[in-house]
Amino acid sequence: MSTYNKINREILMALEAVLGAEYVLTAPEILDKYKTDEETNPRYFHIPEVVVLPGTTHEIAEIVKLANKFLVPITVRGAGTSLSDGAIAVCGGIVLLMERMNKILSFDEEGMYMVVEAGVSTKAIQDIANSKKLLYAGDPCSAESCMIGGNLATNAGGNKAVRYGTTRDQVYALEVVTPTGDIVNMGARLQKKTTGYCLEQLLMGSEGTLGIITKATLKLKPLPPYRFDILAIFTDVTKAIDLVPKIIKAGVTPTSIEFMDNNFVRSTNDYCETRLPHYEDGSYIIITVETLTEDELDIKMELLDNLCTESGAAEVLEADERVWNLRRNCQESVRIISKVNLTDDVVVPLDKEAETIKFVMSTGKNYNLHVMTLAHAGDGNLHICLCKGDLSDEQWDKEVAEFHAEIYAYAYKVGGRLSGEHGIGAKKIKELEKYTEPSELAVMKTIKKAMDPNNILNPGKVVFM
Amino acid sequence: MSTYNKINREILMALEAVLGAEYVLTAPEILDKYKTDEETNPRYFHIPEVVVLPGTTHEIAEIVKLANKFLVPITVRGAGTSLSDGAIAVCGGIVLLMERMNKILSFDEEGMYMVVEAGVSTKAIQDIANSKKLLYAGDPCSAESCMIGGNLATNAGGNKAVRYGTTRDQVYALEVVTPTGDIVNMGARLQKKTTGYCLEQLLMGSEGTLGIITKATLKLKPLPPYRFDILAIFTDVTKAIDLVPKIIKAGVTPTSIEFMDNNFVRSTNDYCETRLPHYEDGSYIIITVETLTEDELDIKMELLDNLCTESGAAEVLEADERVWNLRRNCQESVRIISKVNLTDDVVVPLDKEAETIKFVMSTGKNYNLHVMTLAHAGDGNLHICLCKGDLSDEQWDKEVAEFHAEIYAYAYKVGGRLSGEHGIGAKKIKELEKYTEPSELAVMKTIKKAMDPNNILNPGKVVFM
Repeated sequence: MSTYNKINREILMALEAVLGAEYVLTAPEILDKYKTDEETNPRYFHIPEVVVLPGTTHEIAEIVKLANKFLVPITVRGAGTSLSDGAIAVCGGIVLLMERMNKILSFDEEGMYMVVEAGVSTKAIQDIANSKKLLYAGDPCSAESCMIGGNLATNAGGNKAVRYGTTRDQVYALEVVTPTGDIVNMGARLQKKTTGYCLEQLLMGSEGTLGIITKATLKLKPLPPYRFDILAIFTDVTKAIDLVPKIIKAGVTPTSIEFMDNNFVRSTNDYCETRLPHYEDGSYIIITVETLTEDELDIKMELLDNLCTESGAAEVLEADERVWNLRRNCQESVRIISKVNLTDDVVVPLDKEAETIKFVMSTGKNYNLHVMTLAHAGDGNLHICLCKGDLSDEQWDKEVAEFHAEIYAYAYKVGGRLSGEHGIGAKKIKELEKYTEPSELAVMKTIKKAMDPNNILNPGKVVFM
Repeated sequence: MSTYNKINREILMALEAVLGAEYVLTAPEILDKYKTDEETNPRYFHIPEVVVLPGTTHEIAEIVKLANKFLVPITVRGAGTSLSDGAIAVCGGIVLLMERMNKILSFDEEGMYMVVEAGVSTKAIQDIANSKKLLYAGDPCSAESCMIGGNLATNAGGNKAVRYGTTRDQVYALEVVTPTGDIVNMGARLQKKTTGYCLEQLLMGSEGTLGIITKATLKLKPLPPYRFDILAIFTDVTKAIDLVPKIIKAGVTPTSIEFMDNNFVRSTNDYCETRLPHYEDGSYIIITVETLTEDELDIKMELLDNLCTESGAAEVLEADERVWNLRRNCQESVRIISKVNLTDDVVVPLDKEAETIKFVMSTGKNYNLHVMTLAHAGDGNLHICLCKGDLSDEQWDKEVAEFHAEIYAYAYKVGGRLSGEHGIGAKKIKELEKYTEPSELAVMKTIKKAMDPNNILNPGKVVFM
């Protein structure tokens, strides 16, 4: 581990000289506010030494140079919606807030792109695009509350990734402040390019450890005006998941394919006070198809209806707002069962998804944990939710660790990985070290060390240095 | 520039110990065979000191370790179809042939993927996929003769990139031998992933300078069974190119949109001994649409027909085999005009494509060069062909350099880049240095230096070290 200097008066004055005193915050109640992100376990909280609010890329570059000069770490924070402790300053030092970097710099309807600062909310980007019949296709489940910078840093996924890919597929170019404080434009607004190394793709998903993303040029697409949603209910999980590759092979190009196991079907029906069919024994697959013409919609609706029935669905219904309401309230519904709970994120190949879900279910039976599974089924991306219930803290910690170890080992055995969209952050840094082949890990560390020789940016995340 | 040792008896014996003597070639007539790739100007030829033919990844790793030990450079060669001098051993040393690495290791129809060694021909991959109604969507114009490894190293584009993206979009995972001789698996067969740095995307497009790609896991897609091709003929280049964004916004998702200027219309009609309409004054836009259902084909055909007419096409015809025959023979047809000719590759934003083509045309008038333009119009990717004709060698060199300097400056001014798909290689290494922002170039060099401290892999390409 690197050793850092503590923030002292000299460093604070240097930061104030760059930002002005009003944007360098050290009041204990402010620092306390930034001790965590979506993390709820106080054991993982860490109070930063100073919080800064830069307003320009140039200021960010200056802060990074100061951090190198004085050897203090920087943790960048967007909206603080990380589910992997990504925005917690685990090594102390500076928390750098992106919230003043909140301008939409240009929106070119004809050219179908938008240039935004990293602190713009994802929802704002979606709404502005939609207002001109265009689509920004990045759509993490936290879109209402997150910022685009965090989406870029974690390569966020979400409900639409099955059709449009993850955040990395929505990006033409980035402006990045490197770990040594240089401002670099990576990528270009081009459909293709082989002009040197593809740095923008390296930066995306590096979770703030290889650079601070300050601006992005985002791709926009035509907004499909026609839509239908189907709820296919299965009493057999394998049949439910086996539907997914059939949909993809048939060329339906769905916008979403979501899976809820029966535990989630029950908890969300309870929470939302509804009783949709097969409460007792159903797993739900929710499919959204969006098209540019009505004729295409009709063709795909019929195709999909047949596929669901042929695949052994117990019922195939039009999914109205009540169904998506269940899906949206999955996380909240878990609180009925257990105030303390934990959602994990693993990803497996599509053709291993059914068996993985069944392994999760059967493994869960050997534990005192209540195990529930959601999936972005079109991506092989499982969110496994564990409920603490009446377990003691010690038993909970022990069971979670053992259960996760079994799940991760299984996921890797079938070609999966530790995270589909939440990232590694601090939460899974030990697991990344454990499950990644040493030669791959070595390349990651070589790049990190070369780009960030003082280990200034987001230390204690992704890879141990 | 790095300095290297010459190949000597000791190094040859070490190579023979790894490969067996039959795969370590030093006969002058063999070495001479590998002095160039698609480069035709002898000034750029370079005879290697030894040619090796490894049969396994392990052998390649051993060769790389030897090269580091003895400080000799390695240039990897697939099928030698580089248009940017990428396979020429400009610093001498070892040429490493991939042709024995030619096995298709697995083809999973259900899982829709293929695992191949880097020396497999792209055509073979396409054919095998097609035989099971699947599509490998990478399709460089050299598909008949190139190898997948070269496609991966240069992020090859081609006619289908407008719909399916470039080679980097067709890949789940790579096996790579690093510049220090480690074998690393990058990526995984997953729809999404945020599990450490995205190394596979960094490797693709790095043109053999950051690692030797030895295997790839490729994505396959459903093969669309229905197809139609339209030839839209325009007498106004701006109108022709302005059709492109309209097609994309309308959601037609064409497989190809190709552009031929009137010079190419003439040369190919002459070469193929045909007389398609508007030989005298037409620019051609050739559009292919492929669909999974007949109904969808009908919808899109009507939509496209209307779009072409509304955009001011002089004629809209069904494009039969004769039209694609013209497109395929563009390169050959240039030889009628001038035995010595040169095709360049630049890429600009779609909404700057029409003005760039017009700039190329008008600029060409100030030179004694005969200038012809082809484009993968859906990608903003121009191939500008220059004919030497009767010019002296000196005049040709001078005019080409001056003309290119004007075009590159213009391309960068409108947000373009030096290469859309051919790569930088040795051919444009000076231009990359000139046109790339110093801060971006610095990051590229930092990564290259960290990963390849002895500058062993493909030196003299992409970036100066």
